[in-house]
Amino acid sequence: MTHVFRAWSPAENRELGPAYRAATREQVLEACEAAHAAAEACARTRGEQRARFLLRIAEELQADAVAILACAAAETGLAPSRLEGELLRTRNQLAFLAEIVRTERYIDARIERADPARTPLARPDLRSMLVPIGPVAVFGASNFPLAFSTAGGDTASALAVGCPVIVKAHPLHPGTSLLAGAAIERARAFCGLPVGAFAQLLSGGERSHAVGLELVQDPRIRAVGFTGSLEGGRALMRAIEARATPIPLYAELGALNPLFVLPGALRERREAITAQLLGSISGSAGQLCTRPGLIFSSDPTLAEELAVRARALAPQPMLSPAHRRALAARWQARGRLAGVECLHADDPEREEVGVVIERCSLATFLCEPSLREECFGPSTLLVTCADAAQWRQAAASLPGTLTASVLRAAADEALARELLALLAPLAGRLIVDGVPTGVEVNQAMQHGGPWPSSTRPDTTSVGGRSILRWLRPICFQNWPQDWLPPALQDDPAREGARRIDGPS
Amino acid sequence: MTHVFRAWSPAENRELGPAYRAATREQVLEACEAAHAAAEACARTRGEQRARFLLRIAEELQADAVAILACAAAETGLAPSRLEGELLRTRNQLAFLAEIVRTERYIDARIERADPARTPLARPDLRSMLVPIGPVAVFGASNFPLAFSTAGGDTASALAVGCPVIVKAHPLHPGTSLLAGAAIERARAFCGLPVGAFAQLLSGGERSHAVGLELVQDPRIRAVGFTGSLEGGRALMRAIEARATPIPLYAELGALNPLFVLPGALRERREAITAQLLGSISGSAGQLCTRPGLIFSSDPTLAEELAVRARALAPQPMLSPAHRRALAARWQARGRLAGVECLHADDPEREEVGVVIERCSLATFLCEPSLREECFGPSTLLVTCADAAQWRQAAASLPGTLTASVLRAAADEALARELLALLAPLAGRLIVDGVPTGVEVNQAMQHGGPWPSSTRPDTTSVGGRSILRWLRPICFQNWPQDWLPPALQDDPAREGARRIDGPS
Repeated sequence: MTHVFRAWSPAENRELGPAYRAATREQVLEACEAAHAAAEACARTRGEQRARFLLRIAEELQADAVAILACAAAETGLAPSRLEGELLRTRNQLAFLAEIVRTERYIDARIERADPARTPLARPDLRSMLVPIGPVAVFGASNFPLAFSTAGGDTASALAVGCPVIVKAHPLHPGTSLLAGAAIERARAFCGLPVGAFAQLLSGGERSHAVGLELVQDPRIRAVGFTGSLEGGRALMRAIEARATPIPLYAELGALNPLFVLPGALRERREAITAQLLGSISGSAGQLCTRPGLIFSSDPTLAEELAVRARALAPQPMLSPAHRRALAARWQARGRLAGVECLHADDPEREEVGVVIERCSLATFLCEPSLREECFGPSTLLVTCADAAQWRQAAASLPGTLTASVLRAAADEALARELLALLAPLAGRLIVDGVPTGVEVNQAMQHGGPWPSSTRPDTTSVGGRSILRWLRPICFQNWPQDWLPPALQDDPAREGARRIDGPS
Repeated sequence: MTHVFRAWSPAENRELGPAYRAATREQVLEACEAAHAAAEACARTRGEQRARFLLRIAEELQADAVAILACAAAETGLAPSRLEGELLRTRNQLAFLAEIVRTERYIDARIERADPARTPLARPDLRSMLVPIGPVAVFGASNFPLAFSTAGGDTASALAVGCPVIVKAHPLHPGTSLLAGAAIERARAFCGLPVGAFAQLLSGGERSHAVGLELVQDPRIRAVGFTGSLEGGRALMRAIEARATPIPLYAELGALNPLFVLPGALRERREAITAQLLGSISGSAGQLCTRPGLIFSSDPTLAEELAVRARALAPQPMLSPAHRRALAARWQARGRLAGVECLHADDPEREEVGVVIERCSLATFLCEPSLREECFGPSTLLVTCADAAQWRQAAASLPGTLTASVLRAAADEALARELLALLAPLAGRLIVDGVPTGVEVNQAMQHGGPWPSSTRPDTTSVGGRSILRWLRPICFQNWPQDWLPPALQDDPAREGARRIDGPS
């Protein structure tokens, strides 16, 4: 079995120069052992120190920005401006998480003091807080070589709370992953964190799947973060279930991000909406987890207007030939379905892809389960809704999704509110008069909804709450004061940040 | 297939009078449809109203206490005093959760206001809060007919946050389950909550497993709470993985609750420790999830002293003949292992069981994986540790567990702290100088640790954090003020309870 593989240049449609070597089984085991050995020391670090570590990673990424951006551009074919934005976002999310963990308020300290006089039994002293779950495996995503890969969201949030991280680099951007990994490694050494706090494993060639499976099956790994395909996610679920000790899997497996264009909105600002939609569908060649893959409208001609605009757009390379072939296969299969019209698509033999605009009736949409599957790339399906009953039927028929959007005008209020109520149980983020692409990183963001958009709708992979997936509560019963972690010791100076004695 | 089944009287060792009918497939579907239909109305209820509902359930349970306690005693063979304590605990946890949700502070409201002037892109208004995950399936546990069954912890915490609940009653206590279910139903009607907010399905006879599997595979169920065996939990995992849309499973599947008796402690208070240990092992016939199933000591004679005390205890009935047979089969199998001595056990043909005290060396314990499996009932295995290296080896070798305990004296400090550091990654609750049985219900309690003690070590089934497993964050982007839930609208009176603009 060869461990050697190469990256692909989407822009030049050829293999890139350097040969990389995928991690061997021994290297997976070594990384797990080092992470396991480092876990206790990582858990003992203070929020201050981890904040400095995250900020230093951001600085190291910036120091190597020229090389990182050039490599990412070569390996992904994404536009330089998009990659610059992504690097900024990657640095911003590191800085944002640094601010959150610096004060250690997130540990949610709770103290219930002893009551020796209670009858029939004395009440013991109980104190609890959130502690890191242990070594975490993070899978780099193909579509965000920086923000959801080596130094991306899951890595940042896990390091933020003191979990050792082992990244499985995505095979499509090994060079970018190595540069980002080196930046983390320099920051780790600079900040005096233990060896084993971070490691990266390359995967590719015939070891493309094996590295990830070996990693998640290692008993020393305590949780997994993944962004990828439904099939990839199902395979990880099975691998984890086969462990002697299953562990939490936080996986984002695709979303349709339905968008409802209500009649009043279309009457009032047709031009603006069409332009906004096309931008959201085509940006980054549609390779965004929040791209609107489904548009509901009562006006079928909206699809034709999108197609006219689509013709004016330059085709873009996709991340890999496999991505391009998957998109072409899907729209060709859809084209064979009775009732689905393709209004715009490019020759599937071309190396770059244009926007795919398809259209069908709600009846067709409801009958064809394949239309409810994500079609990754610059494509959207416009579904026509004839009346209020159809709008409601459409909203109630959808699978779980990261986002759902409603574009409305004053005249649409009743329908808009009704649709939002139907969409609420299905989505993580509900948008009014906006498009879902462009995910803010702040305390209020939610990125994760019911299956398949997440295996864990109770968590998020972006924003302030993202640290919670790598934490678990632990309770200390009847501990001597000076054995307790400082955050749980009696200390009047800390009172404001803790819950003491009781529900509120 | 017969749907008819009967409960069992452990005390009288015979079937009990009334015949019960297990839920049919149609009844499962009906309950799911009703819960689905009620979900939105339940989610819209205010904390106030749900607090009143929980308190009313507690009152209704108390109003029917005589019948409930008599029925539970007949169906479980547990002592009246234990069941009275359990009923009190069940009412207390309802009241405790009522206090937590009344103020709605738990929804963790976060507001990030728009910044239209931001470049290159305006920042949208983003507001998020926790919302109920939707209809929940709760499995009644065999060993807590009240506190972890129909009106028990998972039901209380899910109702507390506005999730409809469908309970699958445990086949061993159908009568108790029906009485508790009727109490909830009266409270629901009294408080004006929607029909569908609560339902219960009996299971038993040939439908014993089918009812539960049908329930968790219904697409309208959005999360599952389970307390039971490892095999039962694995079966539920597989059933959920086979869904088109997998959902979160919160399952507690057993724990060894290791307890380390350090040499100094034994020198100083041998009598007290022996008595405390035997009480913790034998209470409720050992049918408690936190019973210490493993004791580590450097003094092998501790096992003999436990055996002497065990002889003086009256044997107790177990919950069912199946429980008794499983316990007998396990200690007989262990008795055949070289190196495992049985110091006390009763004739396995007897209808009531005494305490099982076994002993082995650490070397034997480390070689025999079966000794690391839970042995449900009044039994414990004492493992002898010869020196400090063995103590450490013992602590590092253990599987995940609900609790781990260290009994120590001043002379043991260094060893105690070392062991606690090794045990911390494995346990949800770490106890010093105490036994694990007796689980407090308050804000600091943690009940759940790494597998197999929980499938979700990041959550708890007891205490203030227990509500979090039934909640998920949802983000509202660019919503008109008056469409937002009241908790997220601009309102100076609420500012103290929310995070506004920024990390801290």
